[in-house]
Amino acid sequence: MNGAESLVHTLLASGVDTCFTNPGTSEMHFVAALDRIPGVHCVLGLFEGVVTGAADGYARVSGKPAATLLHCGPGLANGLANLHNARRASTPIVNIVGDQATYHRPNDPPLTADTEGWARGASGWVRTATDAASVGADAAAAVQAAMIAPGQIATLILPSDTSWNEGGVVAPPLPRLAAPLAAPNQVDEAAAILRRGGDGVVLMLGGEALGEAGLALAHRIAVATGCALFADAAPKIARGRGRAAPQRVPYVVDAAVQAMAGTKRLILCGARKPVTFFAYPGKPTSAIPPDAEVQVLARKDQDAVEALARLADVLHAPDAPPPDLGEKPQPGRGPLTPESFAATVGALIPEGAIIADESITYGRGLGAYTRASAPHDWLSPSGGAIGGGMPLATGAAVGAPGRRVINLQADGSAMYTVQSLWTQAREKLDVTTVLLSNRKYQILLGELANVGANPGRTALEMMDLGNPDLNWTGMAQAMGVEAARADTADGFGDLLAGSLGRKGPFLIELLI
Amino acid sequence: MNGAESLVHTLLASGVDTCFTNPGTSEMHFVAALDRIPGVHCVLGLFEGVVTGAADGYARVSGKPAATLLHCGPGLANGLANLHNARRASTPIVNIVGDQATYHRPNDPPLTADTEGWARGASGWVRTATDAASVGADAAAAVQAAMIAPGQIATLILPSDTSWNEGGVVAPPLPRLAAPLAAPNQVDEAAAILRRGGDGVVLMLGGEALGEAGLALAHRIAVATGCALFADAAPKIARGRGRAAPQRVPYVVDAAVQAMAGTKRLILCGARKPVTFFAYPGKPTSAIPPDAEVQVLARKDQDAVEALARLADVLHAPDAPPPDLGEKPQPGRGPLTPESFAATVGALIPEGAIIADESITYGRGLGAYTRASAPHDWLSPSGGAIGGGMPLATGAAVGAPGRRVINLQADGSAMYTVQSLWTQAREKLDVTTVLLSNRKYQILLGELANVGANPGRTALEMMDLGNPDLNWTGMAQAMGVEAARADTADGFGDLLAGSLGRKGPFLIELLI
Repeated sequence: MNGAESLVHTLLASGVDTCFTNPGTSEMHFVAALDRIPGVHCVLGLFEGVVTGAADGYARVSGKPAATLLHCGPGLANGLANLHNARRASTPIVNIVGDQATYHRPNDPPLTADTEGWARGASGWVRTATDAASVGADAAAAVQAAMIAPGQIATLILPSDTSWNEGGVVAPPLPRLAAPLAAPNQVDEAAAILRRGGDGVVLMLGGEALGEAGLALAHRIAVATGCALFADAAPKIARGRGRAAPQRVPYVVDAAVQAMAGTKRLILCGARKPVTFFAYPGKPTSAIPPDAEVQVLARKDQDAVEALARLADVLHAPDAPPPDLGEKPQPGRGPLTPESFAATVGALIPEGAIIADESITYGRGLGAYTRASAPHDWLSPSGGAIGGGMPLATGAAVGAPGRRVINLQADGSAMYTVQSLWTQAREKLDVTTVLLSNRKYQILLGELANVGANPGRTALEMMDLGNPDLNWTGMAQAMGVEAARADTADGFGDLLAGSLGRKGPFLIELLI
Repeated sequence: MNGAESLVHTLLASGVDTCFTNPGTSEMHFVAALDRIPGVHCVLGLFEGVVTGAADGYARVSGKPAATLLHCGPGLANGLANLHNARRASTPIVNIVGDQATYHRPNDPPLTADTEGWARGASGWVRTATDAASVGADAAAAVQAAMIAPGQIATLILPSDTSWNEGGVVAPPLPRLAAPLAAPNQVDEAAAILRRGGDGVVLMLGGEALGEAGLALAHRIAVATGCALFADAAPKIARGRGRAAPQRVPYVVDAAVQAMAGTKRLILCGARKPVTFFAYPGKPTSAIPPDAEVQVLARKDQDAVEALARLADVLHAPDAPPPDLGEKPQPGRGPLTPESFAATVGALIPEGAIIADESITYGRGLGAYTRASAPHDWLSPSGGAIGGGMPLATGAAVGAPGRRVINLQADGSAMYTVQSLWTQAREKLDVTTVLLSNRKYQILLGELANVGANPGRTALEMMDLGNPDLNWTGMAQAMGVEAARADTADGFGDLLAGSLGRKGPFLIELLI
């Protein structure tokens, strides 16, 4: 057995059965092993940003890591932006990066790069295999590392000779390390704050605390104590009918500060203290007032749901009636606006759907209009690196067959990883892409206005995706995805409803 | 004057007047400064791999660096693969990477990443600005660093507050540091080898030695001494009628070893000792025999053309008749084959054209069929990271207005940076893209065959770009580039000839 074969067997034994790939020469023995050993579902991406973003989406909905297969330092580099997003979501991923043979690296052939150095900035665990005999053990360690709470990226660099040499040994799966529990004083101090009550007590949830079980517990606590619920980053947020709808901290700094202005005591549960996305001259960088008291109920690496359960017990928080989310909206009518768009989405989300949201500015109404929709899961690129939406949708559809994925997608961001559409067509994935074509980087026009400049031609052209306009139905069809266009809310509703009953991908170009 | 304004003024004073951009929030003050201060030609790319690859192509043909404008660590990361190619070509580039404000970085907002760490693997010079007052000096140092022979990548990271704070100071341009001259003994020892003569003396040229002046000197030396000429990586290679045509070392290892099997004494002039692209079980990693003697006439950082001039003098090498390159080919007829394709290209290359070659497997006939073409320059992604061809073509067209750029482009590689087509349309660039659509990663099928496996369905699907087929005319048109399709050599010749007289971009999809 060669090293590559021991790697495939070990990945399968450790529960990793899906591999998003963009292979190259140094990975040929791994490809041959995947070919010989049945059991790994290989999904080809035509660009590595698709591969890594899809691995992110896959793990978020399936709860287990996918492997990626990447080609040398530059192939890894192409996937780093979406690995950055995955890192911020604490998604488990196992990257397998083929590289130069150990004895050829000192010759510095053209494709040699600092693979380890590039891996480190996105990975919690990096190892370069040294020989075929240890590749199996390396792979088992990588899967274990990826699953360390709350989840992280593990990158195993595989010099080609460690792959092709004989002497591979299949390693047994290593135990999954349980997330440490919050210490008793963490729970007690949070309980004391909540018992004291009063205005301005905020429970901020992140990670697993935004899943269905965590939200149910947080809802009981909020009803019992009157605290407000906010949401931080999470691999996925359970939303819709019957589920508490914590407020998200707005992106725009003034709105973020306003949303959290009344915060006096902030309890963090799997969440980070909220900071603004960027700094601006003369503006705060913290979304909460400087004198707010901060208490950590559960760190990101601790078991947030268990901490909520203990907190609810300590508080004797009774079962609570379902949250009042208002009525599900009616589909929008007439002209397309952010509101009619959001209402249409909110009305039509089918039960069990997965939303991959990279709608950026045009999505500002979505939170309110989808609270009372049928139950669904919400994914977004957590690290702010644009180009995450389409790959997330692609990977989620691979990881959750039978559930419809709706990708709400800004055009500027879509262009970074547009190759995703081809993988959706190849794999016949149940993804509806709603392409919001405003033909500009709208968010940057807002940022430029903040700078106080009256933008001239140079600046405007740097934020303009028109001249020429991108033809999104044409682009989708060129990659094998059926597509249609709408420019009214009614037309959008018809296309969206029609797409939900289909098998396979469909793209709706919204001219907004 | 704020830091951003001092940066723009300093870049202009240092001779940098073109900026390939994909800006984000942290770069808004730089964008505003570019808007207020006339003189910098800003070219928008819809993905950072386009931006960095275009900066590479621009510098190769214009001889001076462009700036790039990139957004934080993930924006830089998206550009790293083509920066790797530029690094291997020794292309000068000045990256400006906006980032979190100095005082906000410790808060670790979502888009924070290890920008410096990622920059290092591709850059010869990395600096993070510390305050507005020094940004001008930092920029002047970056331009100087980029131009240090043979050229390198300089990355200046610009925390947003160093950009928006007042107190910017315009820095005067720093002197361009001349490449050091080869030491007398380097020239004398090379001369001794060449005087001794005999079989198996190879002069391997790289970098500037492959420009018109270097090739003319090398030709004189070769005619006088009987040595063979080989070519290593270079930003651009001067080719066609009247110019010596050094042999390139083949990619395929057996062919590389065969091509250089007779080498007994190897003289390197701006070139590296040739190693194989990858290692393979039981095969050599050096293209030259292990007992070959290696002499360095000029290191990559030394003045290779001056060393050749001194060597020609020492050898008393007289002026030589033009190299015998044979006849220019007639355009191909009938079915498309690598030979009829190459003959058509060779016949039709117009004088002064720039070829951006990422034709991979289908381009195997190009070297022989274009030797006697009209004089032209040849660019290729030097680091082996695929996705370099379209951006190189884009940047070359910006850097050399009035010259037609012909991008010979494999389909698999094209998908990595397909967004280049939009920039070509936006800027109305004179680029003819010849898209070689074989709907597979053909090179990998060869590599897989080398592994000895009889590929099964899993492996074949990972190397297959069909199912669904990419529609390249549709893709080009969706991004505003006119396009047409050919499936015979005659049809290709008609479209290629027609495209050369146009203004603006055109894509020819060759069904091969």
